[in-house]
Amino acid sequence: MAKHKTKIPQIIIRRLPVYYKILKQLKSSSKDYVSSQDLAKLTGFSSSLIRKDLSYFGTFGRKSYGYDICCLFNQIGQIMGFDKQKNLIIIGAGHLGRALAYNRGYQERGYNLKAVFDKNSKLIGEKINNLKVRDINDLEKYLGNTPILVAALTIDNNAAQKITDRLIAAGIKAIWNFTNVSLKTPAEVLVEDQIINQGLCHLSCKLKQNDCLEFH
Amino acid sequence: MAKHKTKIPQIIIRRLPVYYKILKQLKSSSKDYVSSQDLAKLTGFSSSLIRKDLSYFGTFGRKSYGYDICCLFNQIGQIMGFDKQKNLIIIGAGHLGRALAYNRGYQERGYNLKAVFDKNSKLIGEKINNLKVRDINDLEKYLGNTPILVAALTIDNNAAQKITDRLIAAGIKAIWNFTNVSLKTPAEVLVEDQIINQGLCHLSCKLKQNDCLEFH
Repeated sequence: MAKHKTKIPQIIIRRLPVYYKILKQLKSSSKDYVSSQDLAKLTGFSSSLIRKDLSYFGTFGRKSYGYDICCLFNQIGQIMGFDKQKNLIIIGAGHLGRALAYNRGYQERGYNLKAVFDKNSKLIGEKINNLKVRDINDLEKYLGNTPILVAALTIDNNAAQKITDRLIAAGIKAIWNFTNVSLKTPAEVLVEDQIINQGLCHLSCKLKQNDCLEFH
Repeated sequence: MAKHKTKIPQIIIRRLPVYYKILKQLKSSSKDYVSSQDLAKLTGFSSSLIRKDLSYFGTFGRKSYGYDICCLFNQIGQIMGFDKQKNLIIIGAGHLGRALAYNRGYQERGYNLKAVFDKNSKLIGEKINNLKVRDINDLEKYLGNTPILVAALTIDNNAAQKITDRLIAAGIKAIWNFTNVSLKTPAEVLVEDQIINQGLCHLSCKLKQNDCLEFH
């Protein structure tokens, strides 16, 4: 399989989770191959875009067969680094932190959820999905002993930058940011802003374009 | 302000929530104007892309001043239909449904969370953020009496299509889908797949590209 040393453009990275989700579903069907036309129907992307995206990772298509589902699924997983183990912690044991703690998607993506932290003494010690909520005061000590790559941030906006600074000082390499704050971080620390309301924004925008909002 | 009758391309719609988030932060600062260069730093998009995107909605830029923050914020909100009221229900009162019920972003986007439904008799009747969890068996009756545009789906994958069919038969116009199922819906019903692990996928992919995964 072709190795790709060049950086994959951001815009393609954004589409990879969609391909991954669709291919995972196809894998559990009885089919072995999928055409770019079928992928277009399932993803909502155009088939020419799909062919362009997928050709970026090497050649998987076989004329008149289409793409090998299993092969493509594995390759996209590898490109996304799912074959490598990554330790993850969650900061904030509120409703969203709790939902993330029960999220079932970590293992297949190579993530190991190792700990949940909170500052609220009422929550500290409580078990969430078999993980005891730890005291945020013990963050540095914990990170000194356990190699963690990624921290999910589900805390109040006003505490976001301060906790981020502590996480970075303690060696965290990437932040999955659910707060509304544009975090300031050194260039080598990755931040992924997860706007939980993004889908609602898109729906609202499309409902408006379809004139569905005029009668409400 | 220029009215836009043409459909906004999907790819621009995807970026609107990011602009909205950044402009909201800027609005609470003391500045009145922002340059495309500063927006580029804050969004991670290139300044030429930003100028192109924003010119799509009319002309906001003033030479040597930049964009009027308040005006642009309001206009993007309008384009996303935030000025119109939209009723929303949540199907599934599990951890994610609960987190969504406590989400604070609805009001400013014109969404009114009206009800939460579940099939679990242990949860029915429980109050979540002042909303009593309703019995999913009462879904059709409820939707017959209350005009609801959007349903958030936070249920098991195996129930997703069946509930979707019921929602559509009862008049729902859009589905905010947190399940892993590619829902089959008529063309006039909008579906927005919210892949909760999307951010983790992007981070993993970028960590791999930065060679951060080799030592773990």
